[in-house]
Amino acid sequence: MAEKKDIGGMAKREKNRGEILVRIGKFADDLVDEIEKGDNPHIDIPVRGSSNVAFDEKNKKIVLGSKVAKRYLFNVSHARRFMQTMLVASYVKKDLLENNLTATLRDLYYAKKRTIHGTKEDTIDEQKESDLAIVDFEVALDTFREMLHLRAEPKGRMAGMMTIKDYVRERESLIDLSKLGSGGLAVPSIVEQIEFVDYDLDYVLVAEKNAIFDRLNEDEYWKKNKCLLLTTAGQAARGARRLLQRLSTELKLPIFCLTDADPYGWYIYSTMKYGSMALAHESERLGCKEMKFLGMSISDIEHYDLKAVTIKAKEVDIKRATEMKAYDWFKAKEWQKEIDKFLDKKIKAEIQSLSSKNLQYISNTYLPEKIKNQDFLP
Amino acid sequence: MAEKKDIGGMAKREKNRGEILVRIGKFADDLVDEIEKGDNPHIDIPVRGSSNVAFDEKNKKIVLGSKVAKRYLFNVSHARRFMQTMLVASYVKKDLLENNLTATLRDLYYAKKRTIHGTKEDTIDEQKESDLAIVDFEVALDTFREMLHLRAEPKGRMAGMMTIKDYVRERESLIDLSKLGSGGLAVPSIVEQIEFVDYDLDYVLVAEKNAIFDRLNEDEYWKKNKCLLLTTAGQAARGARRLLQRLSTELKLPIFCLTDADPYGWYIYSTMKYGSMALAHESERLGCKEMKFLGMSISDIEHYDLKAVTIKAKEVDIKRATEMKAYDWFKAKEWQKEIDKFLDKKIKAEIQSLSSKNLQYISNTYLPEKIKNQDFLP
Repeated sequence: MAEKKDIGGMAKREKNRGEILVRIGKFADDLVDEIEKGDNPHIDIPVRGSSNVAFDEKNKKIVLGSKVAKRYLFNVSHARRFMQTMLVASYVKKDLLENNLTATLRDLYYAKKRTIHGTKEDTIDEQKESDLAIVDFEVALDTFREMLHLRAEPKGRMAGMMTIKDYVRERESLIDLSKLGSGGLAVPSIVEQIEFVDYDLDYVLVAEKNAIFDRLNEDEYWKKNKCLLLTTAGQAARGARRLLQRLSTELKLPIFCLTDADPYGWYIYSTMKYGSMALAHESERLGCKEMKFLGMSISDIEHYDLKAVTIKAKEVDIKRATEMKAYDWFKAKEWQKEIDKFLDKKIKAEIQSLSSKNLQYISNTYLPEKIKNQDFLP
Repeated sequence: MAEKKDIGGMAKREKNRGEILVRIGKFADDLVDEIEKGDNPHIDIPVRGSSNVAFDEKNKKIVLGSKVAKRYLFNVSHARRFMQTMLVASYVKKDLLENNLTATLRDLYYAKKRTIHGTKEDTIDEQKESDLAIVDFEVALDTFREMLHLRAEPKGRMAGMMTIKDYVRERESLIDLSKLGSGGLAVPSIVEQIEFVDYDLDYVLVAEKNAIFDRLNEDEYWKKNKCLLLTTAGQAARGARRLLQRLSTELKLPIFCLTDADPYGWYIYSTMKYGSMALAHESERLGCKEMKFLGMSISDIEHYDLKAVTIKAKEVDIKRATEMKAYDWFKAKEWQKEIDKFLDKKIKAEIQSLSSKNLQYISNTYLPEKIKNQDFLP
C-alpha cells in the first residue's frame, strides 16, 4: 500500500472553515469601513458573462478573465442584488459555518425569503435570485460554494482498492471502498473533508454510466486492475468532479474517462477536464486537466468491429460536433481527427455495444487492451 | 440488537437462481412437447393492458386480472415477438443465470440484435422490442426481471442502524450502514441477495429527496431515532422499491414516507405503496402496502405555519390531483380530505420549506412530532 497521505480530513475541513470565516470577516469589515467613511458601500465581483470567459491554454482550463464589476448599495439597479448578497453572506456565516452545518441552495432560499417589513416587497422572489447572489458571493470571496458549506445535488458511485475517512460533523467513518457490495459508496456533494487513508491504485477509471459501473464491479475489474472505479451517472455532479480533481492533483493518479462515442460523451469528458463556460469561475476547483479520454472512440468502432451495433447520428449530434470542433479545448489534432471521423461516418456507438461480443468483453479485453496500448485521446 | 434474520443472502440467491433455471427448463420442455406433437408451439402471456388491470382492495395493490393471451409461433402477427421472447429466454438462461452474471436490458438488446442469416431482417430493430419481450418472459414465468439477473438503473442512498451483507458473485461484503460518512450506501438495482444481518431499528424513513437525506444524515437523525434512512432521489427505482418491501414484510418494520406536499409527491408515495398501472404485473414484488405517508401534508402547512413559503399550484397540479382523487387507491377518506384541501387552497409546499424555521427544525421538531402523534395518511 502507498504511503499514507493526510490531505483532506477533519483538520483540513476545520482549517478551511476558519479561513473562510476570516475572509467573510474581512469582506464585512471592508463594507463597514466604507460606511463609516461615508462612501457608497460596494462589492467587487468578477464578471461571469461570455465576454469574460477564455481558455487558458497553459493550464488547460476554461477560466474567467480579469474584468471585475463593482456593485454598489446606493444604486437603484444594484441595491436589490447587493441586499441579496448580504443575506447570503449572513446565512453562510451565521447559520452554516458558525454552526458547522451544511445546506442546499434551496434551504438558503427558504430561510432568507421574507416580506420586508413595512413594504410589499419580498427579499427574494425566486430561487434564481438567491442562486445568483450565492455565485456572486463565491467569486467575491474567491472560493467555491462547498467551502461555504452549500451542497449541490449529489450523484455518482464508487468502489475500489482504497480506504477513505469521511466526516459528518464530529462523526468519523473509515470506509473500505473494496467492501461495499453491489451498490458502492454514493459520492457525496461535499468531498473536501474526505481523507485518502490507504490505497493500492494504478489509476482511476471514471465511467459515464451506472450500467458500466455495475458490469465492472461484478467482474471485480477494480480488484484485478488495481483501480478506483467511479460512475458519474450522466453529466458529472460537482462532488464527483472535485473528487476526481483531488485524486489527480493530490495522489497524482492517472484518470481515465469512459463515455459513449458521441458528442454528448465528449461533452461530459470535457466538462470534467476543463470546466464549462457557464461555470468558468469554478474550473480552478472542479477541473481535472490530467484526465485522459480512454473511449469509446470512433476508431474503436472499426478496431473492435462494432459497426453492426452503431447508431445513426442525428442532426443535433452533427450540429453539436461541428460546434465542438471549433472549441479551443478540442483543438488537439487527435480530437480534430476524431471529430472529423464522426462527421464523416455519421455514426455513434454506446459503450454497451461491446456487450454484443460478450458481457465481459469490456472487462477482459477492451479496457486492458486500451490501457496497455495507452490508446487515449488527450 | 434484534435477533439475526437469515433471509436473503447468498444461499437465497442460489436457491432463486436454481428455481428460475428449473422454470425456464419447464417453459422450454412445454414448447418441445408441442413441437413433437406437431402442435403449433405457444406461450401463455398474461395481458398487461389497462383492460386487465385492477385494484386489489384486500391486498392493497394494483394487479393484473386473469386474462391470458396465447402467443403462437405459426401466426404471422405473433411470430416475430415469439422469436424475440425465445432470444430473451436463451440469453437469460445461457448468458446470465448459468454464468451467474447480471446485465441491463440494453446489454441484452446488443447481444441479441443481429441480421437473420439469408435475409435483410434484424432479430430486433429497437430496444423497445426486446424490452417488451423481457416483460413477456417475466410474466410468462411468473417472476420479475431481477430474478432473471436483469438490472435496472439504480438510484437512491441509505444509512442507518443496520448491518447488511451483500454479495457480488462470490465476493461477500459486510456493510455497516452507520459508518458510511456523508455519502451513504448507493442502493443497488438488485437487492435479493442482501442479508439483514444485524439491526436496531424502530422504523424506516424514506425521503423523496437527496437534500433531505443529507440534512437528516448530518443531524444523525437515524442514530438518535433508531431508524434506517433511505432517499429515492425522485421517483423510486425498482431496487429501492423492492428493498422497502423486504424491510416491511421480512423485518415487519414500519415504513414512513416523506415527500413534498403536492400531487407528484403523492404519486411517488402511491407507486411505492401500491405499484403502478404500467407495472401492474410487478406490484406483487415491488409494492409496500404497509407504507404510511408521513408528510408533508397540506394540513402541515397550516399546522407548522408555512403559508409564507408555499408555492401556487399550477394547472397541471390541479388536473393531476383531480385525476388522483378518482383512483381506487386514494379513496380513503383521509386522502379524499387531503386532496380536497389541496384543490380548495391551490397551494403546495416542499419539505425544504421547513428550513424557513431553521435548518434542523425537520430533525428536531417536525419529524419527532409527526411520528409521536402518529400523524400519518394511510
